[in-house]
Amino acid sequence: MIVTEFARNQWYVAAYGHEVGRRQLGRTILNEPILLYRTEDGRAVAMADRCVHRRFPLSESPSHLVGDRVVCGYHGFTYGPDGVCVAVPAQQRIPRTARLRTYPVVEQDSFVWVWIGDREPGGTLPPRAPWLVSPEYATVCGMEPLNARYGLLVDNLLDLSHETYLHGGYIGTPEVAETPITTEVDEDAGVVYVSRHMDDAACPPFYAESTGIKGRITRWQDIEYHPPCLYLLHSRVAPVGSPPPADDGTDPHAFHVEVVYAITPSTENTTYDFWAVARDFALDDEKVSDFLRDSNRTVVLQDVAALNTLEQVLAAEPDRYQELSVNIDTGGLAARRLLARMAAAGAVRPEAAAR
Amino acid sequence: MIVTEFARNQWYVAAYGHEVGRRQLGRTILNEPILLYRTEDGRAVAMADRCVHRRFPLSESPSHLVGDRVVCGYHGFTYGPDGVCVAVPAQQRIPRTARLRTYPVVEQDSFVWVWIGDREPGGTLPPRAPWLVSPEYATVCGMEPLNARYGLLVDNLLDLSHETYLHGGYIGTPEVAETPITTEVDEDAGVVYVSRHMDDAACPPFYAESTGIKGRITRWQDIEYHPPCLYLLHSRVAPVGSPPPADDGTDPHAFHVEVVYAITPSTENTTYDFWAVARDFALDDEKVSDFLRDSNRTVVLQDVAALNTLEQVLAAEPDRYQELSVNIDTGGLAARRLLARMAAAGAVRPEAAAR
Amino acid sequence: MIVTEFARNQWYVAAYGHEVGRRQLGRTILNEPILLYRTEDGRAVAMADRCVHRRFPLSESPSHLVGDRVVCGYHGFTYGPDGVCVAVPAQQRIPRTARLRTYPVVEQDSFVWVWIGDREPGGTLPPRAPWLVSPEYATVCGMEPLNARYGLLVDNLLDLSHETYLHGGYIGTPEVAETPITTEVDEDAGVVYVSRHMDDAACPPFYAESTGIKGRITRWQDIEYHPPCLYLLHSRVAPVGSPPPADDGTDPHAFHVEVVYAITPSTENTTYDFWAVARDFALDDEKVSDFLRDSNRTVVLQDVAALNTLEQVLAAEPDRYQELSVNIDTGGLAARRLLARMAAAGAVRPEAAAR
Repeated sequence: MIVTEFARNQWYVAAYGHEVGRRQLGRTILNEPILLYRTEDGRAVAMADRCVHRRFPLSESPSHLVGDRVVCGYHGFTYGPDGVCVAVPAQQRIPRTARLRTYPVVEQDSFVWVWIGDREPGGTLPPRAPWLVSPEYATVCGMEPLNARYGLLVDNLLDLSHETYLHGGYIGTPEVAETPITTEVDEDAGVVYVSRHMDDAACPPFYAESTGIKGRITRWQDIEYHPPCLYLLHSRVAPVGSPPPADDGTDPHAFHVEVVYAITPSTENTTYDFWAVARDFALDDEKVSDFLRDSNRTVVLQDVAALNTLEQVLAAEPDRYQELSVNIDTGGLAARRLLARMAAAGAVRPEAAAR
Repeated sequence: MIVTEFARNQWYVAAYGHEVGRRQLGRTILNEPILLYRTEDGRAVAMADRCVHRRFPLSESPSHLVGDRVVCGYHGFTYGPDGVCVAVPAQQRIPRTARLRTYPVVEQDSFVWVWIGDREPGGTLPPRAPWLVSPEYATVCGMEPLNARYGLLVDNLLDLSHETYLHGGYIGTPEVAETPITTEVDEDAGVVYVSRHMDDAACPPFYAESTGIKGRITRWQDIEYHPPCLYLLHSRVAPVGSPPPADDGTDPHAFHVEVVYAITPSTENTTYDFWAVARDFALDDEKVSDFLRDSNRTVVLQDVAALNTLEQVLAAEPDRYQELSVNIDTGGLAARRLLARMAAAGAVRPEAAAR
Repeated sequence: MIVTEFARNQWYVAAYGHEVGRRQLGRTILNEPILLYRTEDGRAVAMADRCVHRRFPLSESPSHLVGDRVVCGYHGFTYGPDGVCVAVPAQQRIPRTARLRTYPVVEQDSFVWVWIGDREPGGTLPPRAPWLVSPEYATVCGMEPLNARYGLLVDNLLDLSHETYLHGGYIGTPEVAETPITTEVDEDAGVVYVSRHMDDAACPPFYAESTGIKGRITRWQDIEYHPPCLYLLHSRVAPVGSPPPADDGTDPHAFHVEVVYAITPSTENTTYDFWAVARDFALDDEKVSDFLRDSNRTVVLQDVAALNTLEQVLAAEPDRYQELSVNIDTGGLAARRLLARMAAAGAVRPEAAAR
């Protein structure tokens, strides 16, 4: 069965940095409504998106920013970036308890990460996706809201054999579904690796049009999933017969694409599906950027449509429906196991979670 | 109270034969999602509409047929018309349990019937509606989805006094509501008969325009309900003063219309409302066909609107609301009683029903 | 926490008198579906909006009035204004129990009040809002459906400091939120009084454009809430420096506006928001009427949008969310207390409430 519990006390991508600015942005993460904005000196802040007074959302008009403060649009309760209330209508005294919960924020690799949990992150930092801000890569990205539980997206991304059927004509060819995978799990680090190396495969339009390769390719898909939120697909394509990577790690004869997903649970059956595609070729070619953005968004929307359908299917199922897993599911099942472990470790009693 | 339990181990109309072809058709019957299609040699097959792997619907794009097989649009699991899985991605071995439940199918009288239950039908066959494929009759038909529990449609059809109020200007005249009914129940065969014979009635447009009768009519409505699914209305109209049917059953002075409904529960509060109108006159007159198709569809949609409203009313009611039944409800109450008996006889424990 | 129980055995505004006529009107009040219409001699009547037979709504087409009677659109059951069934299809005998529950009605101050409860009102009469029909006032009015629990509207109206933030540019100025209130509760009569007197305030467009005042004003807001349903805001505006009201109560130097709301719970999370604005100036000036109607409707719709948002927020909250109340909430908290007391006093066991 799909994991549906949330893994608390973890970092989650709340937004791209470019989404957080001088207008309030509201996102719901693990069922927690969160207000994001940027102070005048450029710092991203995150706090509870509910006024302490009558719970009006601070992200919704007519709530608004005044300098670094946010003013509730209902009765004017006003909060600083530290969540502390600094103004209440018709009285001078501010109740001591009038403060919003704030969330630890790390801005890294183009993402705004927030820590969701009742413990502090301590020294824990979010995992990295450095290509998204590297000058040696060109990146396109987006976010699509998914009306499905996040576990369905984890399942989807951990088993790419679906590319052949769901994404034929974009990124799928027969070889993807035909080629067996190898799976490794680093239990200590909590990372799942799934690899599929195709020695001689058709080149799907996604790569043919962006790289210019005409014939068949060697195609490597090396997945690295850092549950709960970050998914990396190291994709390597090269014309069949090209030399392999050198011992020093350089690989001048191949094209590299880093496909990054951030899987952020919003509610029990909605998810933010952040996606980015970074390439190490045609860096300044806007046509290639446009093509990859359009293609990957189309692929993501194909997933969204299928997973939204599956969510409806599962919601209508009796409590214990049956699945049948095969070899291609090894990575997905490992991911479910790690997620269940994380959820158990981060669980809090409901009363402790009440704000 | 209206019967809301389902009568399992019964035949239900899943579709018209002409709806089942070389594209997949998905129907949900008694809460069971069912895939229907026709093999290359023309045989209609029915099986569970959920891939055994991750439960993607086999009726939904990009799932598709290849020859007699259906290929799941998510990861390519492939099934034969016997429900057995014949292909799985990236491996040769097919798990022994990879098979879809299939449903017994009978194609008869233009309908595709499926057997829903945990027992086999054995020698049981669906009831007949031979007029729908008889060369001596011309038939128009359709299906309207109803957002209401099936019991409301049973109630509706068993008591035609509502024609006067809900279908005035189409099939209703004052005499329908005014004329008492006679009801008989064949307990052994499980059939409800309701008859209303009007000796001297206004001729509603439905019959005036199709038969050409100008004056008043003798109008007989003889209902024959074979619960749970098949409803037959033998309708006879003739100018007042015409001879009655002969002793040998021939009846050359009257017009006969066989109105057939198949009442197929989809979910607890949705129903497929199949309707057909077969006549023994003006067989080749397309204008009459068009008129009867439009008129009956309008009448059905009037029922659909009223029953959808009633469903909303009942859904908002406290658990035990009161009804008041009168003579006209005798047939409907008998139908409810037979349905409750069938539901009890066909009931299975939830765990036995799990697939 | 907001009061969500209903106060039964109370008068509620069901409609404006002008809404009740010779076509049926259906309103749901405290979850009870009610049919309203006017007899041929002009009397407003209220009865259960469900046919005793199969519960079809008597307010919905094709149900219709024939003289003083209402005919059910499904099977023709017919009822007099006393709720007694007078006709049943296909039989002469009318079952003795075929009668609809009727509701006590008082038509007063332009409103049609109905009594919801299991006791009789006895001598209890609805509270008054005489300005709405006084020749010395000109009135504009309307009703907006609210998709929120009624307690949110009570909260909203009892604390007008929100005018500054939610209704800036219409009726709000900084002085409203800045000025403290005084609150009094008449425990015996069950009335909450909240007053805010601003000695020197900006004149918001609502008053500037309707009265013609150019400069700053003395602005009094005297709220009188008769729970559960009737809310009166006695609003007095005058140019700064104008004489106060005379000892005999006359007040020729000021403009008076009586803002009246009727807060009628429909279901647990829907409410009828009746609003009226009566003024004692520019009585025949249609432009002023149009302006005040448009302005107040805009203000009401701003409330509706905010409260609909809040309803969604609260519906998604854990059961016990926290609020923080301050001085401005004194009136609202008193109102909640009176409403809870009324709800407890009027409560009936569910089986007693079943109809």
